[in-house]
Amino acid sequence: MSKKPKAVILISGGLDSATTLAIAQEQGYECYALSIDYGQRHRAELQAARRIAKSFGVTEHKTIHVGLDELGGSALTDKTIAVPETLKEGIPATYVPARNTIFLSLALGWAEVIGARALFIGVTAVDYSGYPDCRETFTHAFEKVANLGTRAGVEGGAFQIHTPLVTLSKAAIIQQGIRLGVDYGLTISCYQSDEEGRACGVCDSCRFRKQGFQEAGVADPTHYRK
Amino acid sequence: MSKKPKAVILISGGLDSATTLAIAQEQGYECYALSIDYGQRHRAELQAARRIAKSFGVTEHKTIHVGLDELGGSALTDKTIAVPETLKEGIPATYVPARNTIFLSLALGWAEVIGARALFIGVTAVDYSGYPDCRETFTHAFEKVANLGTRAGVEGGAFQIHTPLVTLSKAAIIQQGIRLGVDYGLTISCYQSDEEGRACGVCDSCRFRKQGFQEAGVADPTHYRK
Repeated sequence: MSKKPKAVILISGGLDSATTLAIAQEQGYECYALSIDYGQRHRAELQAARRIAKSFGVTEHKTIHVGLDELGGSALTDKTIAVPETLKEGIPATYVPARNTIFLSLALGWAEVIGARALFIGVTAVDYSGYPDCRETFTHAFEKVANLGTRAGVEGGAFQIHTPLVTLSKAAIIQQGIRLGVDYGLTISCYQSDEEGRACGVCDSCRFRKQGFQEAGVADPTHYRK
Repeated sequence: MSKKPKAVILISGGLDSATTLAIAQEQGYECYALSIDYGQRHRAELQAARRIAKSFGVTEHKTIHVGLDELGGSALTDKTIAVPETLKEGIPATYVPARNTIFLSLALGWAEVIGARALFIGVTAVDYSGYPDCRETFTHAFEKVANLGTRAGVEGGAFQIHTPLVTLSKAAIIQQGIRLGVDYGLTISCYQSDEEGRACGVCDSCRFRKQGFQEAGVADPTHYRK
């Protein structure tokens, strides 16, 4: 039996969450990876998540389905809303309503079942798209909800939401991941990757990724369509 | 176009949430009802939710699927855990890990999409089964998460979590519902109702319901198997 503390790590298949998983593993946690199939148009992400979980030898990887596409309201789940190709002021069309609240809730449910008290999420408030649910004030507020709204919280085992990337630039994230052996060729960041996992090269997520590799001085393993 | 403010009301098919919907409607909200198909063994609940939503003439009723049965850990989603037939100290086996956190997150997502700022949930801290996520401290903490983790919250429209039943006894809930014209014959409270919607009569939920009708002095319309 493992004596390591358990952690649930949300992995999307992207660069940030793969690095977060690497950090959780380095910090000595037994890792349980959770991916959410929320009807995202970038389906290749979920395959990338499976490859990443396997490459780290996690104890278990689950993919939970939740019908966010039935709610609509985001370019990532609603095919009638275009993915923007230029960064604008404010919160972009790729924002998915309440996404990280929903994802952390599901991670919390699994954590409670398996006896984990650590939840890891790869949010970053630097080089990001302006999503409100990527800020530390949000994750701190969620920590309170976790400890008030669960049996485990009430019975004394306090949950902690770990956000190891929150103050890092994309370049710093990549440098840390390279040091920890992350194979970024397995990851997909693009909001509109094709079935072969090739990236568009023009959405916000692609542009932050490209720039991150450049600034980090690391060769970019991404397959871009253009 | 309706000038009423919009509200999302979580409805399970049970007595409490049907009463909550009646209260939201009486308070002048345009009602959007949300049910969650989380793999609960009491499937008749979801049919009851559809009948209730229809009886109130809600603007829209959605049922969102989320795979909580894949996470396990509760007598309500895991057929290997028995539904208890006697009330014990502490949090019972019917507790579903992080359920109301997950449900409120989904309600929040939909509320943001449709422009609602009011979320109603029929939690009650009196005559209840000891679930931690039925307390006001929990719903207050969730309100903060809602306002920090969404575009609508950040842009100024504050979300409010309404818990109109939280301080009411089951008898008081039933009396209020009768006054508002709730047809309790449409509702199902039992944790293990059969396909015809008949109640077991012995689980916590059945016992609180039976006792509530007795104390309210109202005829109990429930079909019990025994």
